[in-house]
Amino acid sequence: MTATATDQRVFNFSAGPAALPLSVLREVQDELLCLPGAGCSLLEMSHRDKRFVEILHDAENSIRSLMGISDDYAVLFLQGGSALQFSMIPINLMRGTGKTAQYLLTGAWGKKAFGEAQKEGDVEAIYDAKESNYNHVPTASDYTVRDDAAYLYYCSNETIQGVQFPTEPECPDGVPLVSDASSDFMCRPQPIEKYGLMYACAQKNAGPAGVTVAIVRRDLLDRVDKNAPGYLQYNNHAEADSEWNTPPTFAIYVLGKVARWLQNDIGGLAAMEKLNREKSQLLYDIIDSSNGFYRGHAKADCRSLMNVTFNLPSDDLQAKFVAQAAENELASLKGHRSVGGIRASIYNAMPLEGVQALSSFMKDFAAANG
Amino acid sequence: MTATATDQRVFNFSAGPAALPLSVLREVQDELLCLPGAGCSLLEMSHRDKRFVEILHDAENSIRSLMGISDDYAVLFLQGGSALQFSMIPINLMRGTGKTAQYLLTGAWGKKAFGEAQKEGDVEAIYDAKESNYNHVPTASDYTVRDDAAYLYYCSNETIQGVQFPTEPECPDGVPLVSDASSDFMCRPQPIEKYGLMYACAQKNAGPAGVTVAIVRRDLLDRVDKNAPGYLQYNNHAEADSEWNTPPTFAIYVLGKVARWLQNDIGGLAAMEKLNREKSQLLYDIIDSSNGFYRGHAKADCRSLMNVTFNLPSDDLQAKFVAQAAENELASLKGHRSVGGIRASIYNAMPLEGVQALSSFMKDFAAANG
Repeated sequence: MTATATDQRVFNFSAGPAALPLSVLREVQDELLCLPGAGCSLLEMSHRDKRFVEILHDAENSIRSLMGISDDYAVLFLQGGSALQFSMIPINLMRGTGKTAQYLLTGAWGKKAFGEAQKEGDVEAIYDAKESNYNHVPTASDYTVRDDAAYLYYCSNETIQGVQFPTEPECPDGVPLVSDASSDFMCRPQPIEKYGLMYACAQKNAGPAGVTVAIVRRDLLDRVDKNAPGYLQYNNHAEADSEWNTPPTFAIYVLGKVARWLQNDIGGLAAMEKLNREKSQLLYDIIDSSNGFYRGHAKADCRSLMNVTFNLPSDDLQAKFVAQAAENELASLKGHRSVGGIRASIYNAMPLEGVQALSSFMKDFAAANG
Repeated sequence: MTATATDQRVFNFSAGPAALPLSVLREVQDELLCLPGAGCSLLEMSHRDKRFVEILHDAENSIRSLMGISDDYAVLFLQGGSALQFSMIPINLMRGTGKTAQYLLTGAWGKKAFGEAQKEGDVEAIYDAKESNYNHVPTASDYTVRDDAAYLYYCSNETIQGVQFPTEPECPDGVPLVSDASSDFMCRPQPIEKYGLMYACAQKNAGPAGVTVAIVRRDLLDRVDKNAPGYLQYNNHAEADSEWNTPPTFAIYVLGKVARWLQNDIGGLAAMEKLNREKSQLLYDIIDSSNGFYRGHAKADCRSLMNVTFNLPSDDLQAKFVAQAAENELASLKGHRSVGGIRASIYNAMPLEGVQALSSFMKDFAAANG
């Protein structure tokens, strides 16, 4: 049955929840009825059981080690996805400070975050790429961050638009830099020490839906309004090692396995970045050499390593592309309903072979329909 | 490997996350690498994929059918556990109404809910069983609910104390009755039409950690303060069929399987109640006939069908009981750290054989140590 199930698997370009490493899925499957030595499934195990606490700490330590996160930061496993972070961030870092939070808007997720933050106090969009339909990121000269800002917020990779910051935006010393890294978490090495807070819902690049990792500089934990709902206070989760209430145990368990796969099978984040550059370049090369048949959405200097977005000459051709790709076991290539076009999400777990198969298909499709 | 894993399983009396039906775990295991026909694991599937949307709707419909929930109620799948509900309930049903919410406190979870609600407005504990160390529930003459209360809140089963309301508390017409049913959800038929809101985190009686079911009467959805964080507004989730943001897909998938197991294998909630009464009575009979060796915590008229709590004559004997039980493949019997003693959680998925094994062990242990 297992062999058959593997035979039925296709290359899955979903934007999230998205592909997971096959070796991780196999481990989960093997352990599903009974976690070795535990007498029960992980799904049935108390979060206070010392074996689960060890699994949680292993997941945290694997992420710390991969990303080079010092003990100056708490690493938290939360629920509610990015949507809840959109509120938790201003509630924890701005509410009651009298300060203004500033936002860089380079796509759909940054805009959503800004919308929720507006409910919590003074916020300001200091850059908005709306006029160019969110096809680029700003340079340092395009915006000015106040020295007394509550924080500077940006989304490092806009999944829908396929636009990624090549590096951190400029941010004055003393202003916490806050990043939504949901769709490019652990895709490359990053200087965590530049951040006040980085978070990622796991289901795009790191695990299943249902857990969000928040990396919070500990000195920021005291800012929170203690009258805020308890679940929304990072300090509660930090003080309780992510067990302030029952955490999403299964999602944390899988996330830990993905982090170990990144370290042991891939060789760490530098090796992961090299592979991600190779994979994305394969597709961007096809786009660039297609004589305009494929038109990339993002400007060349901020093309995403994770989400390759492009349009074809007509809606009919786009529909034909998606349908024929599916027949060739290349699934979930339709762009987000709010934008249209094609989106190939090629997160960490998408194997090179999958991207090679898509690149061949794109070449053939252009030749036949161009 | 599967056979070996099953051999290694013990009877798991954990209070939550807790035992799941073995047949459900087997199905999850079989489908883990590739959901039949989907080309990928459920863990990798977009929540917008029509196959997942169908899984979500099937889970909802199975719960509606089992519990007899009419379309006057929304059935929502949320994250954040009971802890987030403690805040969401007053934010949605009280904030801005000028009304007072009233609480019946019969154990640890009700008290926690009351603590969070106090941040959100005027709340009042109209009954508190503290003086008797939370060993009973009030009768109708013990409290008075205001006709203009924002809602009346209670916890139908206090997991830690092992105290369960045998039936709904008295509540005036026009006052929404709100219940935390986390640890006795779907353990018996209940008159949903008496409720304004019932919620349950799944990991005790209905599924894995990471999803909370909220059943909300639709006319209450409009009460919410629209300036509250978007994730905290029930109406957002109701309007989007629990896909306002990415829901905890795997936990919903398992929850749906548990609901179908309840219908198809057990025969519905009346049959489940019969079995739960039989299981719990086995243990209460041992307690009652032990000549005081086992001392039940809860008064006889409100003993929980789900969590059987009792003490032994000394701490040493309690430690010996837990250790010897574990040697006999009866796991996780230690009471909650805040209370001590023994707690046998015998939720829906605990088979009769497990309770029979525990009852035999209790008889032997009392004979040897009494």
